[in-house]
Amino acid sequence: MSVLVVGSIALDTIETPFGMASDTVGGSGTFFSAAASLFGAVQLVGVVGDDYPLEQLRFLEERGVDLSGVERRPGESFRWSGVYSYDLNSRETRETRLGVFADFQPKLPERFRDTRYVFLGNIDPELQLDVLRQVHAPRLVACDTMNFWISGKREALLELLSRVNLLMVNDSEARELSGDHNLLRAARWIQRHGPEMVIIKKGEHGAMLFTRDLIFNAPGFPLEDVYDPTGAGDAFAGGFVGYLARCDALTDEHLRRAMIYGSALGSFSVERMGVERLINLKAQEVHDRVRAFHGMTTFEHAVATLTNV
Amino acid sequence: MSVLVVGSIALDTIETPFGMASDTVGGSGTFFSAAASLFGAVQLVGVVGDDYPLEQLRFLEERGVDLSGVERRPGESFRWSGVYSYDLNSRETRETRLGVFADFQPKLPERFRDTRYVFLGNIDPELQLDVLRQVHAPRLVACDTMNFWISGKREALLELLSRVNLLMVNDSEARELSGDHNLLRAARWIQRHGPEMVIIKKGEHGAMLFTRDLIFNAPGFPLEDVYDPTGAGDAFAGGFVGYLARCDALTDEHLRRAMIYGSALGSFSVERMGVERLINLKAQEVHDRVRAFHGMTTFEHAVATLTNV
Repeated sequence: MSVLVVGSIALDTIETPFGMASDTVGGSGTFFSAAASLFGAVQLVGVVGDDYPLEQLRFLEERGVDLSGVERRPGESFRWSGVYSYDLNSRETRETRLGVFADFQPKLPERFRDTRYVFLGNIDPELQLDVLRQVHAPRLVACDTMNFWISGKREALLELLSRVNLLMVNDSEARELSGDHNLLRAARWIQRHGPEMVIIKKGEHGAMLFTRDLIFNAPGFPLEDVYDPTGAGDAFAGGFVGYLARCDALTDEHLRRAMIYGSALGSFSVERMGVERLINLKAQEVHDRVRAFHGMTTFEHAVATLTNV
Repeated sequence: MSVLVVGSIALDTIETPFGMASDTVGGSGTFFSAAASLFGAVQLVGVVGDDYPLEQLRFLEERGVDLSGVERRPGESFRWSGVYSYDLNSRETRETRLGVFADFQPKLPERFRDTRYVFLGNIDPELQLDVLRQVHAPRLVACDTMNFWISGKREALLELLSRVNLLMVNDSEARELSGDHNLLRAARWIQRHGPEMVIIKKGEHGAMLFTRDLIFNAPGFPLEDVYDPTGAGDAFAGGFVGYLARCDALTDEHLRRAMIYGSALGSFSVERMGVERLINLKAQEVHDRVRAFHGMTTFEHAVATLTNV
């Protein structure tokens, strides 16, 4: 099954302790598509200005991403510029220039509207709701958000939550949204407000999935060199939704594996600046990393007899 | 096989957002013994003052902890007092009174010296070395340390590292010791300085084991209510070493399970103030939690075909 994604298509200027990139292709739509397209067809909806180097998105087309929902409008593309701390655990935004993104009105090509797996990247929740109104009968709607919308558009966000199946947020966002520091209680709070599934992303500490009956933990993958965390969450989402769409199944067992495929894609994403590592990523590398995750987490559950109690 | 532990036997005064405890039994030796004694015999070596409420350690004796290595000396017992932040992720020490611990010279009863599983709790590395000189042919020596010794007794600590099999530290300690923020590189640095195994504890984010050939991640157990993190690391160590000593085996498969038993004991420990939760902990509860860890981490490693690449 194909996956529909709506998100930003940006030009990022990134400074980390290990490198710099200027006006490199980025944005939630781009990272998600780069990851999800390893699993099957992707339909990307977004907007770019007339200054956007569209040839740099050609790798997406070659992997089966349908770019006909990417609107090109007169004006400047969305630009983000940020600098990471020495440990990559925090970042400071230097500049955000919305450009043509400022009055983006997502309009889905007719043939995108029957797509059953949908990812609403981190954009204004009112636009995310707009997109939802245009799709006919999705099987899975996953969405992301951020602190800016949690504080600034809370009502629209809560409306959105009541209409999606899955919210993916990072730990600080889950805490801010729920007003609860405890991540388990925060997840349960979010579930009470709509989505039956919540994924809380914890950066280098991995990610947790909460459903009605299942809690699943995917560890962070230990890497000797992490170059650039930008887009890792969207690469995770692309791996997660892409895997489920490929299997067209939402059993617990598929959700578990989707968490690992998501984590694998997120871990590759940070190995180079921007989207670079995802461009030439090979299926065999993904399989090998999934196997490594298995080796890192599996144990035989043989019951020991504890005679002392 | 029995386990020998040398550590502090303290009176803790703890304030968390959820409760207070005054002069409650604590210390690394106490928490370790409470956890490890669920798996088999434990020999505890430490010192208390003549004000120590020894009757509160009776639960340990009832579980098979040999307290004949606990010296009782005239003077005040070791006291620690601390207050936790609202999210329990940081704490401030209000007061440390060493009392009789100030000139503690661990002296192992003759019958403790052949014990093959040894845990050196977080005390002066020179004392840890003293203990090592008194044991004959240990199969596994695990030790803990803290920032205070990393900066203040680095030379003795490095000497100790060259003589132990396993160092267990938390993430900030691993970073400080190695001078490297990256936890994988920090673990490799530590391995190059002696111990073939390193466990890095990450609080609510779980713990990771690094051996020559294996990296294993145990997640933190999601709890709705965490009351008091004091001693969780020592309870983890007790579960880990206790499980290995019970099996008298150090294969990768045993190490994996030991990580989970350790995590289970650590997760119980934080559910009540001080050592309270460990006192009446039942074997069945430990088994059930290990099963829950299995459910949180296991996935079938079926290879999906990613045809798009």
